[in-house]
Amino acid sequence: MQRIVVIGGVAAGLKAAAKVRRLDAEAQITVLERGELVSYGACGLPYFIGGEVEQVRQLMSSPSGTLRTPEFFKKAKNLDVLTRMEAVAIKREAKIVHALNLETGAKQQFAYDKLVLATGASPLKPAWPGVEKENIFHVWRPQDAAAIRRGLETQKYEKAVVIGAGLIGLEIAEALRMWDVDVTVVEMKNQLFPALLDEDMAQELELSLAAKGLQFLKEEAVEAFGGDAQVREVKTDKRTLTADLVILALGARPNVELARQAGLEIGTSGAIAVNEYLQTSDKAIFAGGDCAENTHRVSGEKVFLPMGSTANKHGRVIGENLCGAGVKFGGVLGTAVVKLFEMQVGRTGLNERQGAAAGFECVSVTVAGYDRPHYMKAARKVLLKLTADAVSRQLLGMQAWGEGDVVKRVDVAAMALSLGATVDNLFDADLAYSPPFNSPIDMLAVAANKLTAKLGRC
Amino acid sequence: MQRIVVIGGVAAGLKAAAKVRRLDAEAQITVLERGELVSYGACGLPYFIGGEVEQVRQLMSSPSGTLRTPEFFKKAKNLDVLTRMEAVAIKREAKIVHALNLETGAKQQFAYDKLVLATGASPLKPAWPGVEKENIFHVWRPQDAAAIRRGLETQKYEKAVVIGAGLIGLEIAEALRMWDVDVTVVEMKNQLFPALLDEDMAQELELSLAAKGLQFLKEEAVEAFGGDAQVREVKTDKRTLTADLVILALGARPNVELARQAGLEIGTSGAIAVNEYLQTSDKAIFAGGDCAENTHRVSGEKVFLPMGSTANKHGRVIGENLCGAGVKFGGVLGTAVVKLFEMQVGRTGLNERQGAAAGFECVSVTVAGYDRPHYMKAARKVLLKLTADAVSRQLLGMQAWGEGDVVKRVDVAAMALSLGATVDNLFDADLAYSPPFNSPIDMLAVAANKLTAKLGRC
Repeated sequence: MQRIVVIGGVAAGLKAAAKVRRLDAEAQITVLERGELVSYGACGLPYFIGGEVEQVRQLMSSPSGTLRTPEFFKKAKNLDVLTRMEAVAIKREAKIVHALNLETGAKQQFAYDKLVLATGASPLKPAWPGVEKENIFHVWRPQDAAAIRRGLETQKYEKAVVIGAGLIGLEIAEALRMWDVDVTVVEMKNQLFPALLDEDMAQELELSLAAKGLQFLKEEAVEAFGGDAQVREVKTDKRTLTADLVILALGARPNVELARQAGLEIGTSGAIAVNEYLQTSDKAIFAGGDCAENTHRVSGEKVFLPMGSTANKHGRVIGENLCGAGVKFGGVLGTAVVKLFEMQVGRTGLNERQGAAAGFECVSVTVAGYDRPHYMKAARKVLLKLTADAVSRQLLGMQAWGEGDVVKRVDVAAMALSLGATVDNLFDADLAYSPPFNSPIDMLAVAANKLTAKLGRC
Repeated sequence: MQRIVVIGGVAAGLKAAAKVRRLDAEAQITVLERGELVSYGACGLPYFIGGEVEQVRQLMSSPSGTLRTPEFFKKAKNLDVLTRMEAVAIKREAKIVHALNLETGAKQQFAYDKLVLATGASPLKPAWPGVEKENIFHVWRPQDAAAIRRGLETQKYEKAVVIGAGLIGLEIAEALRMWDVDVTVVEMKNQLFPALLDEDMAQELELSLAAKGLQFLKEEAVEAFGGDAQVREVKTDKRTLTADLVILALGARPNVELARQAGLEIGTSGAIAVNEYLQTSDKAIFAGGDCAENTHRVSGEKVFLPMGSTANKHGRVIGENLCGAGVKFGGVLGTAVVKLFEMQVGRTGLNERQGAAAGFECVSVTVAGYDRPHYMKAARKVLLKLTADAVSRQLLGMQAWGEGDVVKRVDVAAMALSLGATVDNLFDADLAYSPPFNSPIDMLAVAANKLTAKLGRC
């Protein structure tokens, strides 16, 4: 009977534990979670704030409505899930995890044969003066979202400042607009979605979002927060903004201290180094989810790209490998999509800037068109940019946004990138055509044709 | 200066002509079309009947609203498009097409250096007694759709019988329900979409469509039509149905007589045989669109699979090859999608029955689930069946239907099939995740996991 200890009980950790249980009825599986809650859908928090999700407990429930508590996991899957239990040290030679019961202050030890690190990531929180004031939030845990939603329901907030124009920042900005809160987004870089889109793709998108009532201040650095106990002002290097709600959405860093102290290798990306089986430099210890490093399928580079979808897949791979399956995880593409009002924004692979930085000779085309035949009332516009390497003709990445069906094209491009497609593989893929859903020649194929014309026939 | 003659001016023919013009400003390009109309969006006809498209002329117009007439093509692209001009013989040694002007009865000859056959397909019309009565329609040309729509607008029809439960039959059935016409669909086979879905996938779908007011009579053969000048009854081998409108949707056969008489090779599928450059057995003659045979990418078999999307791609490939590009067309997957009320139905590749017939050792799994996290109000159900070959682990095909996002998954599967993916390539593809659009692990990956469990790890 193998003893498996999992540190972290949100996504990758519990997924790994559940997978082991399905494959091995005998294993003794213990999950240590320092927080109060386990297995919640963190990516759904913006939609709880905005109102699409009614109850925060829905994010912590199974489809049948059962709350995913430690009792649930004990009963349904025979997992020992211990909350408020913080792992404080890993003794690798003895194969023991030292932990602290945050409720009682008691120290506990957990012996393992195999250990899983799923310690997640933490939001960046610069040491700006005043950052501890009330009504300054991260949107990271259900408790954060619940507090914001309570404030919105009681009309506590009129003016919000969101700091950071990335995925989470803009998801929250949209959610706040649903409650008619005045929203200003402050971004240090010179564009929206600086980690995701090329500047040309971000420019027009910004205009469309401004039309929905979002205000953007770019190339502007936050310096301090003013007010009394509660925040009243955001001071930047250019002005002072009035605000009764501040959202910090500056990105995240992987939680690697426990691994580092245990002498495990930390990768160049800052996340825990793992091999393709998601084993750390100690073969008895796996790492998955936001704390683990990924390999980018296109660039081959090691990257820190925390995503809920990746965490779930990591969990499954680790679970199988804990039972000896030898499953490889193929890597990531940095695929990301976001709904913003009526628009979809998405990307996969490397954008032109990232491709150039990775040493490719990037060639790109941008096509603007309708996602369906122009005669269909439901036809909506999409702007799509496709990038390939001029030498190998390998597809590098795709970015798109618009009111039309962007997500489908992102997924098709992601599938193509996963399989190492060249620009020549896209044109005659037999994609689905019917007027309610697409034009006879999909925009991806149109873009591939334009790229082919630029590159010349192979 | 090369002289190019194109026979057929709907999809593939005009696409090829326009492509040549973009690559070769000098070419003399003549398009012969026996009908009155050119370049219309035939796939949009059901949506004109149903009302999503307001004017039939929208199907014959460019996005800017300009009608795509011969004058338009002359002015915009310097193409000589001759309507009501029927090609009656091809003299291959002399490289001359003999044609008949259907307006004047005059005979004309057109000399070519390269010839394109885009003669399309014709709907099947069995010689049932009474089939010539009024109000019995194919939905093939804009004129057909316009006549049906006029009747619907004047409330001429109360009871319709649609013969054939394939794509076009069910699209029209839906369109007629939009006008509150009582619709009975008669199908000779024992299931809906007999050419597209496995029987198990079709069964529950039928119940869902019945709930929308469609009545289905399966394993029932039409024998005759009763009435006076106008149809009043449909007589089957089991009963007599009252009807004041009959739609024949029995499939199509390729128009190959001209090619056959010219001694060109006709393929085993009954369509014109072509090589990967879409050349016929005479290298100076290309064939594309519904009249041309396709190669199925998964089975390698020659197939007659007429689709508007394929016709457009054929046109482009032929246009490039007429200018010496040497572009190969990769084949088809039989991808098809259809909107039926709130539902999407789709498939790509080989279903289980087709896979077995093609000699594969089929293994399938079916998964039922939501297309988004259960906590999102927009989550909708999808039923998805994935089939692979047990020996090679190659993906063979996918079928799905439901109110959720089926089309996206069909396209992702089609891209994967195009690139020869195995079941092991689907699980860790980095598909887009965000709660408004998907669950952390896409249903395709869930199905791939189940298939992997069935097949064992490779």
